[in-house]
Amino acid sequence: MGVGCSSSLPPTVNNPHCSITFPHTSAHTNPTSNHLPINWLARAHLQKPTKSPISKRLFTLDSARKTPTLKCGRTAQMEIEGGSDSKPILDLHSLDDNLVQKMVYDALVWSSLHGLVVGDRNVQRSGTVPGVGMVHAPFALLPTVFPENQWKLACEVAPIFNELVDRVSLDGKFLQESLSRTKKVDAFTSRLLDIHSKMLEINKKEEIRLGLHRSDYMLDEKTKLLLQIELNTISTSFPGLGSVVSELHRSLLKNYGEHLGCDVNCTPSNDAANRFSEALAKAWIEYNNPKAVIMVVVQPEERNMYDQHWLSFNLKERHNVTMIRKTMAEIDKEGEIQPDGTLLVGGHAIAVIYFRAGYAPTDYPSEAEWRARLLMEHSSAIKCPSISYHLTGTKKIQQELAKPNVLEKFIDNKEDIAKLRKCFAGLWSLDDADIVDTAIEKPHLFVMKPQREGGGNNIYGDDVREALLRLRKDGKEQNAAYILMQRIFPTDSATFLVRDGSCHKDHAVSELGIYGAYLRNKDKVIVNERSGYLMRTKVSSSNEGGVAAGFAVLDSLYLT
Amino acid sequence: MGVGCSSSLPPTVNNPHCSITFPHTSAHTNPTSNHLPINWLARAHLQKPTKSPISKRLFTLDSARKTPTLKCGRTAQMEIEGGSDSKPILDLHSLDDNLVQKMVYDALVWSSLHGLVVGDRNVQRSGTVPGVGMVHAPFALLPTVFPENQWKLACEVAPIFNELVDRVSLDGKFLQESLSRTKKVDAFTSRLLDIHSKMLEINKKEEIRLGLHRSDYMLDEKTKLLLQIELNTISTSFPGLGSVVSELHRSLLKNYGEHLGCDVNCTPSNDAANRFSEALAKAWIEYNNPKAVIMVVVQPEERNMYDQHWLSFNLKERHNVTMIRKTMAEIDKEGEIQPDGTLLVGGHAIAVIYFRAGYAPTDYPSEAEWRARLLMEHSSAIKCPSISYHLTGTKKIQQELAKPNVLEKFIDNKEDIAKLRKCFAGLWSLDDADIVDTAIEKPHLFVMKPQREGGGNNIYGDDVREALLRLRKDGKEQNAAYILMQRIFPTDSATFLVRDGSCHKDHAVSELGIYGAYLRNKDKVIVNERSGYLMRTKVSSSNEGGVAAGFAVLDSLYLT
Repeated sequence: MGVGCSSSLPPTVNNPHCSITFPHTSAHTNPTSNHLPINWLARAHLQKPTKSPISKRLFTLDSARKTPTLKCGRTAQMEIEGGSDSKPILDLHSLDDNLVQKMVYDALVWSSLHGLVVGDRNVQRSGTVPGVGMVHAPFALLPTVFPENQWKLACEVAPIFNELVDRVSLDGKFLQESLSRTKKVDAFTSRLLDIHSKMLEINKKEEIRLGLHRSDYMLDEKTKLLLQIELNTISTSFPGLGSVVSELHRSLLKNYGEHLGCDVNCTPSNDAANRFSEALAKAWIEYNNPKAVIMVVVQPEERNMYDQHWLSFNLKERHNVTMIRKTMAEIDKEGEIQPDGTLLVGGHAIAVIYFRAGYAPTDYPSEAEWRARLLMEHSSAIKCPSISYHLTGTKKIQQELAKPNVLEKFIDNKEDIAKLRKCFAGLWSLDDADIVDTAIEKPHLFVMKPQREGGGNNIYGDDVREALLRLRKDGKEQNAAYILMQRIFPTDSATFLVRDGSCHKDHAVSELGIYGAYLRNKDKVIVNERSGYLMRTKVSSSNEGGVAAGFAVLDSLYLT
Repeated sequence: MGVGCSSSLPPTVNNPHCSITFPHTSAHTNPTSNHLPINWLARAHLQKPTKSPISKRLFTLDSARKTPTLKCGRTAQMEIEGGSDSKPILDLHSLDDNLVQKMVYDALVWSSLHGLVVGDRNVQRSGTVPGVGMVHAPFALLPTVFPENQWKLACEVAPIFNELVDRVSLDGKFLQESLSRTKKVDAFTSRLLDIHSKMLEINKKEEIRLGLHRSDYMLDEKTKLLLQIELNTISTSFPGLGSVVSELHRSLLKNYGEHLGCDVNCTPSNDAANRFSEALAKAWIEYNNPKAVIMVVVQPEERNMYDQHWLSFNLKERHNVTMIRKTMAEIDKEGEIQPDGTLLVGGHAIAVIYFRAGYAPTDYPSEAEWRARLLMEHSSAIKCPSISYHLTGTKKIQQELAKPNVLEKFIDNKEDIAKLRKCFAGLWSLDDADIVDTAIEKPHLFVMKPQREGGGNNIYGDDVREALLRLRKDGKEQNAAYILMQRIFPTDSATFLVRDGSCHKDHAVSELGIYGAYLRNKDKVIVNERSGYLMRTKVSSSNEGGVAAGFAVLDSLYLT
C-alpha cells in the first residue's frame, strides 16, 4: 500500500490537497521558471493555481532533453561527476581494481558464511529443499549514500503509518466503498473484498492485530524530497536478508574503511529480522496458548526462503517460539477450526498466521487457496495481515487517502498528518479527466499502477499514453482498475552490483523501505515501532519508477 | 602421521614393545580364550610371548564370523540393541519419522544460515568463486555417543604429540635415515627429502615453528581402546566446518533435547577455528612485521574453501590479520625472496605460510610447484608446516616411532611416553617377515598404508594378501613403500546421515580427530594446546579402517 497525496508533482508546487506547504522546496525557486510541463499538472489540481517555483536544474534538463528517463539516467550521473549536492560514498571511478576485487571476494565469502543466500534458479530443488542450490543474494558492494535528515524523517513516520493502517482497517465501510468500483474490474481484489464482506456480515472482530509493514520511498533527485512509492501491509520481504546485508557492509567498511575514506558508523545497524521476530513473538504471547505455534504461509516454491528462515531461526533461538511453514493448499487440506475458533493445521494450534504468500493472484491457482484464506480469516488466530489490513494496502486506498481531508478521518494529530503528507507523491484517480489529459500529453511524468501488489505490473512511458487512450475508448468502467501516480526520478549514482559471483559497475538508483511493526490487543498498543530498513538498488537504465519491480540488489545506507 | 606401537593388536595383549601394561584390558580376560588369530600376531612381536587375554565377546564373534568387517558391521549394531556397554544417544529406531524430518529441515536451514557449506561438485565455478554453487556440508543429524574418559585421554595427549613432532623435526638425521629406503621407491617422499637435505646442507634454522596438527583416532569396539590412525602435520582439514557442526548439534539438542532425552551439555563446544586462527595470529605477531600477511597455500580448485574461509574470517575479525590465498603455481610466478629472507608474493611480505595444499603428489603437477615449495622453505616466513614437520608426519616415521625405545630418544617424561603408547595401534615394517606371513594368512586384520598423505590409498582385505605376495616376488626394495598397521574395528551405531538435502539412516563408524596447535620461538613455547576436535562418521559397510578415506559426514561428540 502507498498512502499518498499529490503534494509533490510538480515537485515544487504547493498543493492545496495537502494541508501544509513545504518550505524546504523554496530553495529551488527560480525566476526563469516556465509553466511547462509542470504547471499543467499543477493546474489540474490547484484550486487556486499558483505559479510554480521550479528549480533551475529541472528546467535546464527539461529544455535539454525530451525524456525524463534519460534526464534521470545518464544525465544525472553527469551531474554527480560535475559536483551535485549528492555525496557519493567515495569516487568509485578512482577505486583501484585490485581493491575492488579484494572487497568483492571478501564480500562473497562473508555472504556465504553468514547466510546471505538465496536459492539458485538454475537448481531445481533450491526453492523447496533448504541447504541445496544456494547462491549468495545479489548485493551492492558498498552502501549507498543517503541524507540523514531524510532517513530520520522516514523513520519518524513509520509508527504513524502503522497507526493509520490500523485505523483505516477498522473502517469497513470506507474500504468497501473505496474499492467498490475496483471490485468490478479486478477479480483478485473482488475476491478479497468478498472475504472482507463476509467478516463484516458476521461482525468478526480482530481484537489482537499484528502488522508487519514496509513503507517504500525514493529520494527525488530534483526536490531532494523523500517520496513514498507504496506502503506494503502483506508479505513484506527481506527483513531477514536486509539485516544481514547491513552487517556485510559494516564488516567491509570496518576492514576497508581506511582505504575508502569512510566511517563504519555512518551505516546504521539494521535489526529488522530481530524486531519482526520479536513482534511475532509478542503476538504469540498475546494469543496466550503455550502449545500453539506461528504459521508462515509460503509459496510452494520459494527461492527467497532464507529471508524467511532468518525470522523462524530468531523466533526459536531468542523467543523459543516454533514457526511452521505451510502453503495455502496445505492449509486447505490440513486446516480445521475448533468450536472455540482455534485454527488447527496438521494438528498444530496456530497462534499467529504470518503471510509470505497470498498477496498475488498467482498465489490462488484454485479454489483450494481461497478456501484456505477464508478459513484462516474465520479463525481466532492472529492474522498478519488480516483481510482488512491487506485491503488497506491496496493502491486504490493509497490514492483515496491522498484525497483532501481523508487522512483527517483517521488521524487526529495535525502534526502527524503533516508528516505523512510530506512524503506523499502525487496520486490521482483516472476519473480525473484533467489529469488524464495531462498524462496523455506527458506520459513520462506518470506511472499507471494497477490494483495489484508485488510490483512488476506498472505501466511507464509511452505505454501510459496508449493505455489511457485505450481506456478512454473502452469506457469509464475500466478506469477503476488503475491509479495514476507521479513518477519519481531518483538520484542516480555509480554503484558496484554483485550478482552470481560477479561484480559490475553501473549507474543505479535506490529505494528505501522502512519496516514498521504494530501490535495491539483491544485498546492496548503493545508494539508500534520502526523496525529496521531495507535498501534496494538497481541499474538506473532499467529504472521504471521503483526498484522493487525488476532485478534489484540488496543494499544498505551510508548516512551523510 | 601416526605414532604407534603394537600395543593393541591383539587388542588385549600386553605388548612388551610398550613400556607399560594396560590394566583396563584385564576386564576382558577370558579363560576360554584361544590363540587364533590373535596370538599369531602377538608371537610375531612379543619377545616373551604371553598367553593373550582375549575378551569373551571378541572370541565369540571370531568363532561366529569369518570376516572382521562383517563382525564389526551388523553384529555390533545388534549388540547395541541387545544392551552393550555403548550408550547410544537414544534409540534411533524408535524415533518418530515426523520428528526426524523436522530436525533434518531445521538442520538444513541452520547450516545454510551459519556457513556450514561446501562447493557443489555439480557446479563448475563452485571450487573457484565463493558464494556460488553452495550446498550444505554433509553432516550427521545427531552427535555420536563417545566415552568421556577416552575423549579426555585424547585431549590430554594432544600437547605431547605436538611436542613430539617438534622434537622429531629437529633430528634431521633421524628423518633422513628413517626415510632413506622409502626415498628409493616413493618419488614424492623423495622430492620432499631433497628439499629437506638442502635445508640441512645450508644449516637452515626455523626458529619460529608453528604446527597445526590433528591426531586421528578410532575407538576399538572390543577393547574400548582409542587407537591412533595417524597424526596429520600438514593441511589438517575441517577446523572451520568442524567447529560449526558442533554448534549445529548443540542447537538441535537445545531445541529437541527434551524429545530426544539428551542434554546439550554433553556435546562439548568446539573452538577449533578460533584456536587455529589464534595460533596463526600469534605466529604472525612473532614474525614481527606489521605489514606482512598470512598466506594460505591452496589448490587451484577447492570445494572445501569455506572451511578455510572460516579461519581467514576469524583472523581478520578477531585479530585484524589479513590472510591471502595463493596456489603453488602462483607462488612460483609471483614469489621472490628479499636479501633479508623475506618472502614476497604478489608484493605482499609473508609472515606465515599456512599449507592447505602441497601434501599430495597431485599438488605438484609440474616443476613450478616444486620450485615454489623450495622457495618458501628458503624464506624466513614461518612455515606451517616446515619440510621437517611435514616429513615427521609420514607413515614411515609413524612406524619408526612405534619401534621399541624410539620415543625415548625424543621425550624424557616417562608418563608422557606411556600416555602416547596407550593410544598406539600395531605398526610394522614390511621387512618383518613374521608379520608379513601373518598378514598373508589373516589379511583382514591388517591395513597396508603407502607413504602417502591424504587417505584413500590404503589397501584392505584380500588385497593385502595379494599385495604382499606380489611384493615378496618383486624383491625387498618395494617393501619400503608401505607399512603394515593393525586394522581397527570401531564401534558401529545407527546414524542419520544428511547429504545433498536428504537424510538416510544407516550403521556408521566414527573417527575422532583432536586438533593441536604448537608455536615456539627459539626456547620459548608460546602455544602448546589441544585446539578443538573433529568427528567424522561414515556408513560402516564402506569402512576401510578409517573414515577419512572415502565419503564421510561431519559429526560431533555426545560424551557419556
